[in-house]
Order: sequence, then structure tokens, then C-alpha cells
Amino acid sequence: MTSPSPSDLLAGSDVLKRNEHVAVIGAGLIGISWTALLLAHGLEVRVYDPDPAAQSRCREGIERIAPSLTALGLPVHGLAERLRFETELTRAVRGAAVVQENGPEDLALKRHVWAQVQQSAPPETLLLSSTSGLPATAQAQHLARPGRLVVGHPFNPPHLVPLVEVVPGQRTDPQAVEDALAFYRALGKQPVVLRREIPGFVANRLQSALFRECVSLVTQGIVAMEDLDAIVTSSIGLRWAAAGPFLSFHLGGGPGGLAHFFAHFAPGMQRRWDTLGRPRLDDATIALLAREVERAYGDTSIEALERERDDAQIAMLRARQRGQ
Amino acid sequence: MTSPSPSDLLAGSDVLKRNEHVAVIGAGLIGISWTALLLAHGLEVRVYDPDPAAQSRCREGIERIAPSLTALGLPVHGLAERLRFETELTRAVRGAAVVQENGPEDLALKRHVWAQVQQSAPPETLLLSSTSGLPATAQAQHLARPGRLVVGHPFNPPHLVPLVEVVPGQRTDPQAVEDALAFYRALGKQPVVLRREIPGFVANRLQSALFRECVSLVTQGIVAMEDLDAIVTSSIGLRWAAAGPFLSFHLGGGPGGLAHFFAHFAPGMQRRWDTLGRPRLDDATIALLAREVERAYGDTSIEALERERDDAQIAMLRARQRGQ
Repeated sequence: MTSPSPSDLLAGSDVLKRNEHVAVIGAGLIGISWTALLLAHGLEVRVYDPDPAAQSRCREGIERIAPSLTALGLPVHGLAERLRFETELTRAVRGAAVVQENGPEDLALKRHVWAQVQQSAPPETLLLSSTSGLPATAQAQHLARPGRLVVGHPFNPPHLVPLVEVVPGQRTDPQAVEDALAFYRALGKQPVVLRREIPGFVANRLQSALFRECVSLVTQGIVAMEDLDAIVTSSIGLRWAAAGPFLSFHLGGGPGGLAHFFAHFAPGMQRRWDTLGRPRLDDATIALLAREVERAYGDTSIEALERERDDAQIAMLRARQRGQ
Repeated sequence: MTSPSPSDLLAGSDVLKRNEHVAVIGAGLIGISWTALLLAHGLEVRVYDPDPAAQSRCREGIERIAPSLTALGLPVHGLAERLRFETELTRAVRGAAVVQENGPEDLALKRHVWAQVQQSAPPETLLLSSTSGLPATAQAQHLARPGRLVVGHPFNPPHLVPLVEVVPGQRTDPQAVEDALAFYRALGKQPVVLRREIPGFVANRLQSALFRECVSLVTQGIVAMEDLDAIVTSSIGLRWAAAGPFLSFHLGGGPGGLAHFFAHFAPGMQRRWDTLGRPRLDDATIALLAREVERAYGDTSIEALERERDDAQIAMLRARQRGQ
């Protein structure tokens, strides 16, 4: 498979032109993963991170990620040739078509970074924040040109998980949303736009809702931790990888669809909601879960578990790709 | 691929012997799916359903399921030859090694059925209930021999989704739990034992916890219904098909594992829990969701949506099989 050129990426989109690059701000786990994905799509990338160790960490990270990119059918030859590190933010963003920001979740810091970016980058540069919690409205509050700033929140790690939540702020230009969608789609991601900002956005809220009941069931001793994990992977996980919760219940209603489903199951669902656990994530609960995770998974190294998960993930992603 | 013989199925297990059969009680959607799966594993099946239309419905259902079984690598030739219908319960269960019960969720009815079953079936027959809500303890309350009765709750449809929740009652014999595990594993299922009975068991409780937040977000207009579904399939669904919620956060903590994850994210998680929605599934909410599902999915027939979901599901199941 040959590397797509940046112009291939942009058929029908004005986000990136030839000779432009993407600036990645912050080379933590998320920033490194974005960088690898951008490089594998043939783009020029300039990475800015104030930490002097970031450069070697980033290069090692890309090496580690490369086999996964290969497994997904992406080219990994010569990635490093299009990668440049900058120790000054202004040099990284000057002339950039897109900035993907991955700094700490600190509102004052992000506001400061965006103000600096807008001093050096062209006015039309698309400004994307990987934040999982700080809305674009708040990040852009003191910005001279807030219209190009939009949240592009990936699910970790961005090079493997397709979702990007695109969350415009109150002053985001609708064109910036369109550009963000075109950019992420060109990277093979599955961007989804939220209509309104909400703490935690959507995926993490849903995840935390399910996780609360997980904590409740395991701390009550209803089910062993690894058995709960197995229940999820072998039922709702697999199901929700194929069809989301609403579509699943729509189909669960047979020919009558969701209306029929509710006609039969709404009272039971409401009763279930009324009995869901409300545990607190206090020190005792955390200690119990830490012991339980040690018992359940302590015999296997984090690296081995991670490899197993990524292999399973990649196999399923490829199955999805083939199905499309 | 040739059909395994019943004795192949039972290497190392005493659940089923040659010349024995499995009795399926109730030929609704779940019963038909179990029947198809049992037949595809080379077993003799006797189906009891008081509805005179059940026989033709069951034969049609098996025809409809056959392509999915083929896609999963199971043989579908000559299934009907090992299938027999009985209009009397006693004839279906006489000499049965295993009974899989799939009747309506009516406790009095199930108690009556089990009492009848124990009058005709051998004392060692394994008694499995597909119930999603009636615990074995309650079902077996008036039973002369409660030790062989255990819940074996599949996730719909049983021929496609691997999970079976095995939930012993207070008087269930531990050997019956072992036999249920051996039986379901021989069918290629992934059985998981719960330590204690709880309303809704585990998978449906977790599903309903996540679904409550789905209803909250869509009724608030944060996200369109089909976009919420896309968010789930492209992030947490895919992730949880590969690694359950605890293992996911264990890996999310990096080298420090779950303890490190909690050290950083427990306060944020608790805050998120405190702000989760608490919608009611009242008539207005149901009406809104029914309109929204019509807008989101109304242009495609239920059959086409179902086929799409099943194809995606099968592709991912095969990817898992290859990975194992």
C-alpha cells in the first residue's frame, strides 16, 4: 500500500494545501499517537513540547506504534523524515494548516497557548484541541479569532480507536466544524459532532455511567472482576461494536421497532434504573478494586495485556473495514 | 467442516451421553435460536411448545438462522433430521440429558413446568432456564430436586452472542454449575458464573446503566440519536469488545495500572457520576425517542438494519475466533 499524498487526503476539502504542515502541541501519549497517524497519512508534522525529553520519547513511541499502523494497512516507511521537533511554539505553528493541541487539562495554560498560536499561525489555521474536558467556548474566551477553534477529542489511543468527538464552542465558525470533519475523515477517523457542550462530552459520560454499575457489582461481590470484563466483551461490547444502544433496542423490538420494545420493556427498564448502584469512589472502594485487579490480572504484565487488547482491537477494526 | 458428534462435544464432561437428547421448552425467538445452535452441534433436539404454529415458525426460523451459522463455520446440512416436535411436555423431556427452558417470564408458570419436567425426566437431567429475570432460587422453591436447576441466561440471539450468564440458586448443586459450564462451552458459548443472584443479572444491569445516560443525552438534545450510536460503535463498543471496563482502565493507567489510573482520575470520575442524568422512561420520553428513531433509522427496513448488524457482528466474531 502506498502512502496517500496530502492532496489525496484533501479531495473536496480546503483544510490542507501542498507544502503546509500539521503542528502537534504536546507529545504525551495522545500527541505521539496523533503524530504517528498523521505521518502515516503522508503529512508533514512539527511537534512542539517544552520537555527536552519529548523528542526521544516521541520517536520511541512512533516505533512502538508502527506495527499497529502496519496491521491497519498504513505505510510506516520513512515516517521520521517528515517529522520535525521545535522547542519554540511559534516555529511549530508558523504556516501550519492545522494545529492539534494535546497539553495538560489546564484552562489558563490552554488559553495562553492559543493566544500564542494565533500570533504566529495564519488566521485560517484550524485549531483543534484533544481536551477531554475543557470546552472550546472556555478555551477561546479571550481569543481574537475564536471562530477557528473547535474541540477534536479522540478516544485513546487515536491511532487505533476511530471516534473523534467534534465539539464546537459558542463562537466556533460552522466552517471550522466542516473542516475538522474533513480533516479527521481524511485520517480514517470517524468524527461525530455534538450539538452542545456538556462536561465529559458523550463517550466518557456513557463510559462512566456503565463503569459505576461495574464498581457497584464487583464491590458487592456479585461477580469477580475478570468475569465482569468477560461478560462485557462477550455480550454488550461485541453488540455495541456492531450497533449502538438505540439501534440495538430498535432491532430488539422486532418488526415493531423501538416503540414495540418500549411497549414491552419500558416498565422493567425503569425498575432497573431505580435499582442501579450508587457507589462512591472513596479510598476504601479504590483499595478494594486495586486488590481485585491484582488478583484478577496481576500475573500478566501490563505490556502483555496491552498487546493482547491491541491485537483484538486491530482484528476487529480490520473486520469492520472489510465489511464496509 | 464436519458436524461434531455429541460425544465430541462432551470430552471430559458427563452432561450428555450417546442416544440422549436436549429438550427445548418454548419456541419463541430465544428457543428457536438455541434449537438451531444445538442442531448445528450435532445434537438431537426435541422442542415442546403448546402453540400449534410453533413447529412451522421454528422450521422457518432455523432456515433464516442457517446462513449465520454457516458464516460462523458451523454445519447446517440435515439439521431438521435431528429435530422433533412434541405437543406434550412429558414426551419432550423423557430421557433428556439437558432441558433448556425459554417460556414466558411468569414465575408460577415456570414452577409448574419444572414440576412437570421432574415427573418425567431422569433425576440427573440438567435443568437450564433462559430467564432474564426469575432467579433459580425462586423457580426451584417447590421442587423436589432443586439441585439440578440453574439459570443459563443467553444474550439475544444465543446463536450469535457468546455470553451465557450461569446463575446458580441457593439450592443449586455445584456439580450442576460445572455441568452447565461444560455444556455451554461445548456449544462454543462463553459461560460466566455469577456469585449471587441479583435482579437483571449483570449484562442487562450494565446495559441499562449506559442506556439511561443515552436517553438523558438524546432527550436533552446534546447529540442526535444516530450520532450517539456512532459514538458508541466507534469507541467504547469497539474497546469493550476487546477488553472489559476494568481491564481497559487498568491499561489506561499505563505501567502503574488501575491504581495509577484512580490516583489521577478518581475525583473526575466521581464528579462525572454525580452529574449523570436521571431521566424517567415516561410516555413523553418514549414518544420523543420513538419520533427520533423514526427520523434516524426510519428510511431503512428493520430487516436490512438487522442484516447489517448481524454481518458486522459475525465479522467481528470471526476476527475474535482467529485471534484465539
